[in-house]
Amino acid sequence: MALVTLMTDFGTADGYVGAMKGVLYSRAPGVRVVDVSHAIPRHDVSAAAHALTNAVPFFPAGTIHVCVVDPGVGTDRKAVIVMHKDQILVGPDNGVFSLIAPRATRAYEISESAFLRDRPSMTFHGRDVFAAAAAEVARGGHPEDAGPQVVLRGRLPAEHAEGSAACVAHIDVFGNLITNIARAKVPEGAGFRIAGRKIASLSESYSNVGSGELVAYIGSRETLEFAIREGNAAETLGASRGTVVELVLAADVVDGAPHE
Amino acid sequence: MALVTLMTDFGTADGYVGAMKGVLYSRAPGVRVVDVSHAIPRHDVSAAAHALTNAVPFFPAGTIHVCVVDPGVGTDRKAVIVMHKDQILVGPDNGVFSLIAPRATRAYEISESAFLRDRPSMTFHGRDVFAAAAAEVARGGHPEDAGPQVVLRGRLPAEHAEGSAACVAHIDVFGNLITNIARAKVPEGAGFRIAGRKIASLSESYSNVGSGELVAYIGSRETLEFAIREGNAAETLGASRGTVVELVLAADVVDGAPHE
Amino acid sequence: MALVTLMTDFGTADGYVGAMKGVLYSRAPGVRVVDVSHAIPRHDVSAAAHALTNAVPFFPAGTIHVCVVDPGVGTDRKAVIVMHKDQILVGPDNGVFSLIAPRATRAYEISESAFLRDRPSMTFHGRDVFAAAAAEVARGGHPEDAGPQVVLRGRLPAEHAEGSAACVAHIDVFGNLITNIARAKVPEGAGFRIAGRKIASLSESYSNVGSGELVAYIGSRETLEFAIREGNAAETLGASRGTVVELVLAADVVDGAPHE
Repeated sequence: MALVTLMTDFGTADGYVGAMKGVLYSRAPGVRVVDVSHAIPRHDVSAAAHALTNAVPFFPAGTIHVCVVDPGVGTDRKAVIVMHKDQILVGPDNGVFSLIAPRATRAYEISESAFLRDRPSMTFHGRDVFAAAAAEVARGGHPEDAGPQVVLRGRLPAEHAEGSAACVAHIDVFGNLITNIARAKVPEGAGFRIAGRKIASLSESYSNVGSGELVAYIGSRETLEFAIREGNAAETLGASRGTVVELVLAADVVDGAPHE
Repeated sequence: MALVTLMTDFGTADGYVGAMKGVLYSRAPGVRVVDVSHAIPRHDVSAAAHALTNAVPFFPAGTIHVCVVDPGVGTDRKAVIVMHKDQILVGPDNGVFSLIAPRATRAYEISESAFLRDRPSMTFHGRDVFAAAAAEVARGGHPEDAGPQVVLRGRLPAEHAEGSAACVAHIDVFGNLITNIARAKVPEGAGFRIAGRKIASLSESYSNVGSGELVAYIGSRETLEFAIREGNAAETLGASRGTVVELVLAADVVDGAPHE
Repeated sequence: MALVTLMTDFGTADGYVGAMKGVLYSRAPGVRVVDVSHAIPRHDVSAAAHALTNAVPFFPAGTIHVCVVDPGVGTDRKAVIVMHKDQILVGPDNGVFSLIAPRATRAYEISESAFLRDRPSMTFHGRDVFAAAAAEVARGGHPEDAGPQVVLRGRLPAEHAEGSAACVAHIDVFGNLITNIARAKVPEGAGFRIAGRKIASLSESYSNVGSGELVAYIGSRETLEFAIREGNAAETLGASRGTVVELVLAADVVDGAPHE
């Protein structure tokens, strides 16, 4: 009983996600379908890439993750199956897998007919390509039989690039600011500057500060994050993707004070 | 292990959908419950009817589809089970099944006690009537035992009527305009006028036009649709349900230009 | 095959709910995970408490209900497993269980390592504590082995208190006003005043009044509710949580008329 997770930017109101589920249950009768999200902001490949990093690592080996955030549907971007550790990723090669599987070497283009619905539409690959391919794997098909091995070409915007400046890479639904700074890159005793605010040091949790205060901590993804306890840091700081983060010696900053 | 899909306009925040799932799992322990949508716009029977046409045909034979978009709950509209090809539809007879099953002849009123919860409330038929009836079918009950055979009487608004003018019948979450014009009704070489805009010809896919451009194509439902690539056609054109669509000879139009 | 339901205020867009599902399927492979809601208004413990009362009672015996609406994550509020009739509740002790299980006496703090992920984060107990504890119970662990028995201390805001004034305790997604007045407290022949409006008597259903009219009825939870047929009572009346409800002799009121 294979597990197939679904992530899309479709919403559910039109029944398009329902069609994908129908294809899965029809072609792989014993499958278990798991909703991860259908509320990815429309066409936001970067947001989907982040959400995958949050969800995928916790699933059992062999889980098949379908991600359809695909502004390029109908263009020449490839449809792919990506082998990532013990997980299987299915979706467009548009950068959506570049955070979860940056060094993926085993990727296959979906082109063989067993991995497609007959006469797939040009506009609904979620149903006709990605759900069909996931079903084929769920029922025992080998990803390497989907088509030729390919190198992933999709890229995310600049704030995710290797060696890019330290900045906010993602904002979650709570308004928390997730940076591209890994825990290992945060020196002992460092403080931070962001959006004209200073934070003297890293905290363990929201609870180390009072309600409404700004806090820096290592998030569940092992990168530096900023949050306002019981508030919305993105709104309060006016921060967005790409907002620069500076690491400073703690002696240089006064906790929470405006940075002037 | 029967499959039961759910479509409602309840949202999920109140736990009402949870109650329906509880009834299903309690009364049909082996059932597999599949969310299609709980985000149908409130009381929008027409939107639900469209979403059913998108989702239902892709499910395995014998799937039970519960649709509760039911502004008339508590009135004398009937609760019905409709046999449609190899699928089973459960919901109110208010027109919601008239697109997916326009010629349904086998429909049964839900009135026998095995298909209802004890003392059903007047306000929550989703839980007390429709989920209970679906559970009874899921555990092997025969739809014809639900009650007397009936003729469906529910109707959708005018833009869906047989022989009605060519127009926008539905707008999806992406702002795409789905018309009531079947592929077979679009002559070779036709162009289109809608909301003061002209489109010279049918395209195969969004990708045939540039970002921000208007495109006409045959959608995944085999009807004419209009979209703006990477944009929202409904907003940009100010189109809504009922907006008239004209088919014209391609020679009469200039692609994408304002229609004056 | 244990059933585990999920209720959170996370939304789904970040993949956090996906992570919880991954933990459940990884640690309890045969589990069936059921979404109740991920659209609880953020940090609204009272709304979650209401939604639990709507959903929990309808599930089969032994169902495990995980509720993570937890503004106090990282503080000293306890994580608990609560035995309620034949249902098992898992979540923070912050009042969220005080409507569904007001007299719960069997509650256990989640503190033993089998009920936690290794090195749980301070910020994501949904994944590292509550999903892990639910998985342990789903795979046969005994709640009493989770940790010491505790008395629940969490409280909801005043409008839910024993003996509090008759008022609106909750507003659902349809704008219906759910009061804290049980059916047994509504005398035969009573009328009602709320927000400057009078209602002469209790109706059986929305259908007893015309479209756009205000109606009082006993809701599916066996408490007094107010609704506007095919409308939004909260918006039309300007009512909110805590809005006072008066019970009056029917002779004193004129149905639906402004109260002056």
